[in-house]
Amino acid sequence: MNAGILTIGDEIVAGFSVDTNSVWLAQELLRKGIIVAVKASVPDDREAIEEVLARWDGQMELVITTGGLGPTRDDITKTAFCRYFDSELRFDEEYWEVLVERFQKRGFEIPGSNRSQAEIPVKAEVLPNPVGTAPGLKFQSGTTTFLVLPGVPMEMKAIMTEHFQPGLGDGEAISWTTVRTTGIIESALAAQLEPLVSSFEDIQVAYLPAYTGVDIRLRSSTTGDKGRKMIESAARKLEALVGDLTYGRNDASLEEIVGGSLTRRQETLALAESCSGGLTASRITDIPGSSAYMLGAVVAYDNAAKERQLGVKPETLKAHGAVSEAAAREMAEGVKSVFGADWGVATTGISGPTGGTPEKPVGLAFLAVAGPQRTVARETRLLPYRLPHKAATAQAALNLLRLEIMRLA
Amino acid sequence: MNAGILTIGDEIVAGFSVDTNSVWLAQELLRKGIIVAVKASVPDDREAIEEVLARWDGQMELVITTGGLGPTRDDITKTAFCRYFDSELRFDEEYWEVLVERFQKRGFEIPGSNRSQAEIPVKAEVLPNPVGTAPGLKFQSGTTTFLVLPGVPMEMKAIMTEHFQPGLGDGEAISWTTVRTTGIIESALAAQLEPLVSSFEDIQVAYLPAYTGVDIRLRSSTTGDKGRKMIESAARKLEALVGDLTYGRNDASLEEIVGGSLTRRQETLALAESCSGGLTASRITDIPGSSAYMLGAVVAYDNAAKERQLGVKPETLKAHGAVSEAAAREMAEGVKSVFGADWGVATTGISGPTGGTPEKPVGLAFLAVAGPQRTVARETRLLPYRLPHKAATAQAALNLLRLEIMRLA
Repeated sequence: MNAGILTIGDEIVAGFSVDTNSVWLAQELLRKGIIVAVKASVPDDREAIEEVLARWDGQMELVITTGGLGPTRDDITKTAFCRYFDSELRFDEEYWEVLVERFQKRGFEIPGSNRSQAEIPVKAEVLPNPVGTAPGLKFQSGTTTFLVLPGVPMEMKAIMTEHFQPGLGDGEAISWTTVRTTGIIESALAAQLEPLVSSFEDIQVAYLPAYTGVDIRLRSSTTGDKGRKMIESAARKLEALVGDLTYGRNDASLEEIVGGSLTRRQETLALAESCSGGLTASRITDIPGSSAYMLGAVVAYDNAAKERQLGVKPETLKAHGAVSEAAAREMAEGVKSVFGADWGVATTGISGPTGGTPEKPVGLAFLAVAGPQRTVARETRLLPYRLPHKAATAQAALNLLRLEIMRLA
Repeated sequence: MNAGILTIGDEIVAGFSVDTNSVWLAQELLRKGIIVAVKASVPDDREAIEEVLARWDGQMELVITTGGLGPTRDDITKTAFCRYFDSELRFDEEYWEVLVERFQKRGFEIPGSNRSQAEIPVKAEVLPNPVGTAPGLKFQSGTTTFLVLPGVPMEMKAIMTEHFQPGLGDGEAISWTTVRTTGIIESALAAQLEPLVSSFEDIQVAYLPAYTGVDIRLRSSTTGDKGRKMIESAARKLEALVGDLTYGRNDASLEEIVGGSLTRRQETLALAESCSGGLTASRITDIPGSSAYMLGAVVAYDNAAKERQLGVKPETLKAHGAVSEAAAREMAEGVKSVFGADWGVATTGISGPTGGTPEKPVGLAFLAVAGPQRTVARETRLLPYRLPHKAATAQAALNLLRLEIMRLA
């Protein structure tokens, strides 16, 4: 089954918002064995929408659109579909009552503009929206199914999850997996893996670099059990070769992995962040249930804070500077002790744009982990640009924590 | 001038990475008066790329592609362009030397696979890449210009910024602005603005909702000075009507605005975060120069940390709970005092999925700001989903800080 995803909205095309919907949708479809062949984005423009519908009608088995179903006058998607399918609208009293009630529960009176969201094309099937006001719609044209979804990510996901079950046997799903790595650049990783990768048959390998590491995606056109076994065997060989550079598969994240280990070990964590500025703590606390092991963090941007809140010695700062291995070690041990945690993690570095010197250039960072048995520290040279540097530092700190926990396991 | 953006890569289409490049490009083009008419994404597939090039050639004045220029075998963009333009490749010795040197400087030997990045289509003009290894390329076909850029965001941006100057007079630029709001839902905002908006002539209004607020975009088809004045006048009327619900225009962010105010006032800031988990500190430290006013933060996930690190009274936690107005006030005042800052900001709430009760449901949050003259606190009911709740809490805390600083200005 092949599919096309069309995201609709002036804001998407003009660059006012990032399209995360099509990413989620493509992953969701891939899990169900459906490959997205093409994506497109058009403005809130009836003709531009109809042009894509006409091009994909018959060519794709599944077309999903997101966006343009809101209550305001710039939302035109429903109109475009009504015209393309030559369908009238009917006012759905029952659905209107649902909306009125939902607003009442949150303590609001429903604005009149929301009435348009209860107008349903007669040729469409309604896909109820469990978390928002715009229902999803389903149209059928020959062999092509059209799903029309709202642009608000949470609403789009809820409708897809509740209502979309493709009529496909498991056996037809294509086989793929992603091996996630961190701490090595793309070309070095590819060079290391080249002999293995060129021995693969019917397996495509793609390297997906990001500031936080390189993902390696393996895909085979062989379907079913046979394909799954081929991919699994290839992924294991690859994992054996890269060793502890890999931390997981697919959408695994370091915060989730570290969180899982700490939960199982019934150990606790505290963070001392300088250059990563709270980003590491924010990633840890993104995980549901993190309050079981996350005691807290000190973002010590200021030297005085490093001394007072974390017990870093003034002599250390004087002799080595705040961006030093010695300071990182004392920060990690300090935060561990102050919070009474089993693990303390520290970052200190120069994210820029200013603050660099010839000896300590922008991009430099030190990481430290103080654990139940020992304290380790690492010096790294990361990208000399502020946001990538923050992202890479947080990732490197979480990775060092992962490696230290593994050592004890 | 109209433009099309094509993002290339299995990873983009299959949903393994989020396309932020096309967002940045569209904004950059809009600033230069170029409207993006359509976006598309295709896999690393020569035929799929050529199909889009053929469709847009002659139809668009500018076509920008990103992705597929990497050193690994799955990168196919250059091959597709060579075929479409019937162009050979030449090996550029000079460019190869540049690459070799760049790797040496970072202390790496250059992997042989990078040689392919010095192979240049003879029919293309090279756009040097100041921060990476894959150069940009420029092809011309009749009235259509093709820019071929790498997919790594920083490299793509550097090439565009250094090499792309469209041949356009200022007068032709379309007029637009975005008024950013926070603290009100889309339909309520639209209802409040409806009388004003329906009085606008030749101005399109779009509401762009996010977890952190609703942006209102104004656009006019009238170009030049006249259009700019129309938009400016409309935006000011709109800002007068929404009052302090608006915090800025276009890509203004609360962390930037608050940072600017604190810099001018020579005042300092410290944060006490519970449910926002470090996200507020991370946003503050995203801003270059934030070390001038950001002293630090305590992420007090644990109640003991709230007491020990922030001086919240055990009686307060016992009588009102950690998620309470009283606790938020003491956290803000505590962190202000502990860090010796002029301003203390606190968040405490229930992000879920667990921890909610009938009296204190998931979604509840309290914010507090302790300033030079007074402490204020607010109760809010935000989205009852973990990540949106964190995002909305951090935004609401920064907004309360903005309002309190404004009061003194």
